[in-house]
Amino acid sequence: MNLDDLYGPVQQDLDLVDETIDALRDVDYQPMAEMLELVLAARGKRLRPALALLAGKFGRYRLDLLVPLAAAIELLHTATLVHDDVIDNAATRRGRPTANSVLHNTTTVMLGDYMFAHAATFAARTGNIEVIRLFSQTVMTIARGEIGQDMAAYDTRQTVRQYLQRIGGKTASLFSAACQGGALLTGASEDRVEALKHYGYNLGMAFQIVDDILDVVATDEQLGKPAGNDLLEGVYTLPVLRALQTPVGDELASLLGGELTIEARDRARELVRASDGVDEALHSARSWADKAGAVLTSLPDSPATTALLAAADHLIRRAQDPLT
Amino acid sequence: MNLDDLYGPVQQDLDLVDETIDALRDVDYQPMAEMLELVLAARGKRLRPALALLAGKFGRYRLDLLVPLAAAIELLHTATLVHDDVIDNAATRRGRPTANSVLHNTTTVMLGDYMFAHAATFAARTGNIEVIRLFSQTVMTIARGEIGQDMAAYDTRQTVRQYLQRIGGKTASLFSAACQGGALLTGASEDRVEALKHYGYNLGMAFQIVDDILDVVATDEQLGKPAGNDLLEGVYTLPVLRALQTPVGDELASLLGGELTIEARDRARELVRASDGVDEALHSARSWADKAGAVLTSLPDSPATTALLAAADHLIRRAQDPLT
Repeated sequence: MNLDDLYGPVQQDLDLVDETIDALRDVDYQPMAEMLELVLAARGKRLRPALALLAGKFGRYRLDLLVPLAAAIELLHTATLVHDDVIDNAATRRGRPTANSVLHNTTTVMLGDYMFAHAATFAARTGNIEVIRLFSQTVMTIARGEIGQDMAAYDTRQTVRQYLQRIGGKTASLFSAACQGGALLTGASEDRVEALKHYGYNLGMAFQIVDDILDVVATDEQLGKPAGNDLLEGVYTLPVLRALQTPVGDELASLLGGELTIEARDRARELVRASDGVDEALHSARSWADKAGAVLTSLPDSPATTALLAAADHLIRRAQDPLT
Repeated sequence: MNLDDLYGPVQQDLDLVDETIDALRDVDYQPMAEMLELVLAARGKRLRPALALLAGKFGRYRLDLLVPLAAAIELLHTATLVHDDVIDNAATRRGRPTANSVLHNTTTVMLGDYMFAHAATFAARTGNIEVIRLFSQTVMTIARGEIGQDMAAYDTRQTVRQYLQRIGGKTASLFSAACQGGALLTGASEDRVEALKHYGYNLGMAFQIVDDILDVVATDEQLGKPAGNDLLEGVYTLPVLRALQTPVGDELASLLGGELTIEARDRARELVRASDGVDEALHSARSWADKAGAVLTSLPDSPATTALLAAADHLIRRAQDPLT
């Protein structure tokens, strides 16, 4: 089972989402077109827009409304990444070729704003006030989660509860909105909307925990970006927080809490991997994925249901084998 | 005639707008509440929300819809200021007590995003898809204008036409949206919506030019912030661009084009003031304000019309005497 099983029922429609987003680059202001080219080229796995489309399969599938929603969700995600990459004066951050490494901070911020606003116009195209409101509220929730992450940076005493709240805001809320929005647009029953909303939230939690595990266990090559970056930025994730509670905790805590050399980061990663932290995080991810799957039992058997189940499975297998 | 003449007919309703915005601070996450306190305390003259309310006087005045719109407009403006204050790595920027001087860049960006999104939820409260779309498109236009400004930074060869395009995007578009949105919400006739939209645009152009003149002619005390900041940031405005075309142009051009010492900035301001640049910019501002006034002749005589006319007059008098 691979990503094709997830996208199968909506694969072709995802291309329409891509086209909708690509149309952003047709602006008459050349420098802007080049910047958008730069940030849109780095598009990801299209998991979020796929979820929006799949959720639309549980009512009357309205492609004319679902494509703008899916485009809004994906573009919002991309805009968040652009804003994430604004470099902090206080921190030295290793350079992937982000928008920010080519553009000034201020330009990067405005480019992200432009993309957010464009995403909002996509959401408005649905003509559905409930979906429009969901969209804006999700942006608020994401921003709040990101602020929580900034505030907790370098804090080795933060709780797992705080971590879960934070990733609920910065990640799971968007997965949830994708599913809830898709269901709302196609007139699915209230029960189904609720089920899909919860499926999305639980899947998003599992997704972020897996992502956080991979940052500890995977190589740069496997990730396609520098591994261990979270530790450098003082973002302490579930495997790290769990490891802090194990016998390696004291040595780990003595390394963390401030800026890290590359050597110290590598040692910290070793410690986390040698501890039960990764296993415990994996256990947690599996439990969120299981919850996501359990919610689906209230939905009818269908290719879309199968695809949503496959998404949860895929996540867990990826945590166990980063090459998946 | 003073600002009271402008706000007179909507003075009390503006307090409702303030209350709506102040409610943002009631978040259960304490660090966030403190940040919002910080950025909302620096609220301005409430010109934009006043315009939205006044425009609402040309149809059936629907306070329940106009207050959310006015709050959306003002909050969007405040969010823009927060994002404006993200410090660029490349530039040293003198510190007013901005959000950014207290918070990290990344946190400032997310705080601005939160405010943008909250503004969007206010816009959604109007339940009017046309207004919601106008709101998002205005955010796009503003971001594009700001990017244009960044791209033109330190460029002494930019044209007046480029300058006008830029301020049309970053400033006049929001004035225009305030007026157009207010008119749309109250079911004003299409003619009136158009007239108010154009009034807002022209007024916004005059407003920004006056603001740019003040940065050259006023003192820190008169402005309540460091004067001459535009020159430091490489933002060359109308009086400067005009001065570059006068006999002082060569000396001025030799100073500009890169980072400035405070002494060089002061000399540059002297040169601009000694040239015809300020007068020419003032002439241009007056002509935009006149255009704004002329558009109003198609509207019925009313306290709201009088207030809108007063706004244009007030701007021009402020350019002539910064203490006004």
